[in-house]
Amino acid sequence: MSSPLLVVGTVALDSVETPYGKASDVLGGSATYFAAGASFFAPVRLVGVVGDDFPMEKLSFLRRRGVDLAGIEVVPGGKTFRWAGRYHLDLNHRDTLGTWLNVLETFQPKLPDEWRDTPYVFLANIDPVLQRQVLDQVKTPKLTVADTMNFWIGSVRPELVKTLARVDALIVNDEEARQLAGVPNLVRAAGIIRQMGPRTVIVKKGEHGALLFHEGKVFSAPAYPLEDVFDPTGAGDTFAGGFYGYLAKQGKADEATLRNAVLYGSALASFCVERFGPDRLVDLTLKEIEERVQAFRDLVRVS
Amino acid sequence: MSSPLLVVGTVALDSVETPYGKASDVLGGSATYFAAGASFFAPVRLVGVVGDDFPMEKLSFLRRRGVDLAGIEVVPGGKTFRWAGRYHLDLNHRDTLGTWLNVLETFQPKLPDEWRDTPYVFLANIDPVLQRQVLDQVKTPKLTVADTMNFWIGSVRPELVKTLARVDALIVNDEEARQLAGVPNLVRAAGIIRQMGPRTVIVKKGEHGALLFHEGKVFSAPAYPLEDVFDPTGAGDTFAGGFYGYLAKQGKADEATLRNAVLYGSALASFCVERFGPDRLVDLTLKEIEERVQAFRDLVRVS
Repeated sequence: MSSPLLVVGTVALDSVETPYGKASDVLGGSATYFAAGASFFAPVRLVGVVGDDFPMEKLSFLRRRGVDLAGIEVVPGGKTFRWAGRYHLDLNHRDTLGTWLNVLETFQPKLPDEWRDTPYVFLANIDPVLQRQVLDQVKTPKLTVADTMNFWIGSVRPELVKTLARVDALIVNDEEARQLAGVPNLVRAAGIIRQMGPRTVIVKKGEHGALLFHEGKVFSAPAYPLEDVFDPTGAGDTFAGGFYGYLAKQGKADEATLRNAVLYGSALASFCVERFGPDRLVDLTLKEIEERVQAFRDLVRVS
Repeated sequence: MSSPLLVVGTVALDSVETPYGKASDVLGGSATYFAAGASFFAPVRLVGVVGDDFPMEKLSFLRRRGVDLAGIEVVPGGKTFRWAGRYHLDLNHRDTLGTWLNVLETFQPKLPDEWRDTPYVFLANIDPVLQRQVLDQVKTPKLTVADTMNFWIGSVRPELVKTLARVDALIVNDEEARQLAGVPNLVRAAGIIRQMGPRTVIVKKGEHGALLFHEGKVFSAPAYPLEDVFDPTGAGDTFAGGFYGYLAKQGKADEATLRNAVLYGSALASFCVERFGPDRLVDLTLKEIEERVQAFRDLVRVS
């Protein structure tokens, strides 16, 4: 059995509009999507916060797949973090219609004592100060991976830099990589970010796949050529979940394992966008995932 | 020895500004870049037009690599086609500063009689009516491949559709594919374009690589992760040259050969952008090309 994988991040209720429809109060949040992706490969321990308005039954599919929800703090009288957004016709761009931090405003992540020796730690997209508070509570993790976003890069850069100095790998999208490094070229950007701390940098490029930078080598993963993308929400966090879950299952993070992990992350993300919110991840099977990873391999095969 | 490969397109003088410098009256044109890429693999026959202001010695590197220039018409007293453009900081966008058609305005491609049985024909980016005039002059080509651009899609769509019905493969960039098919999704767009005639559709995505659609299958080629891109001018035509030159050399266009051809095209394009204009293609060697194709294979390798 794989070693446990801890994730700290948001659990949210999203309201999403795409060209294909709209839905309100869908299960969302970075920790949620990450856990949904990682739970196929490793026992996940989830740390987050919700208000007592949160319908916990929305997480029952995660519990069934072995996700331990003991780290979710329920704030009495508090309201759950909410996000609303609208995607453009090409689905590559979106407008944020509203962000209501609610219980997230005073969130202080606190790990159950018995989770302090978790070997694999994922810091999903939250305040980099909180990300470090989590690192302070784990004893000697084998591997720490972080995500972040443009908001933190722009507003609390020095705090983010301190966090980056303490993680093994960073997962960001192409725009975030450029913003963080201050250069437009992604190869140069990854080099600059690696000098900030993370030995491994993964750059997600949405419909253009992902790049893995590790010890001077580059791996390019394609995106799955989907005819229909319904809702890109959560794809990045699901990618991270599939990626890190695979690493935790394999128990190593060498070049070859990292490359396969990127394919598993890409496969999970390609399922995520096929339906609204995390719907497609609820009844997804490991067999379907393995078949899609094979499709990813076929996509780039040359003889 | 490979069978001959005919290209009809523009021979031009470009004035280019990039964030890294500027240059005037650099050798340009779609047929020029195509021939530069294809000449490593097949004997190229070039059909085009210039004015008598054109410095023919600029083409001597092509002649040395076996490109037959007998199809270049020199218009007495005419001026050569000129293009001027400026690239943005990210090198993915450019502004056209000027287009002077000059001798191109009255161009009527005319094949030397002994070229009418050329087995491989490439219709570079020119008026689709002229592209068909070339098809009317060749007897029974084994394979015909065409390029086009947003200008023709927008202004003479019915003519372009007639040309597409007569070609085996189309090479376009992602924006052109979307515009031609009228849908944002590239997989759907390629399907729609294939119904217009071409059995094979190649979609170039610039720094994101290329997609090959052939008989219901998709191949995804990465882009080479360059740290420095100096001048993207001509990269698309050089891609087409490497792609088609490789097919002509192999003498077939099945799925496996097409996939390798996309890698050769990608390798040629990655060299093209390393220096101004076609400079890097002048002293490039087949050994360097083979090494880069291997680098492309390594870039996507998973074990």
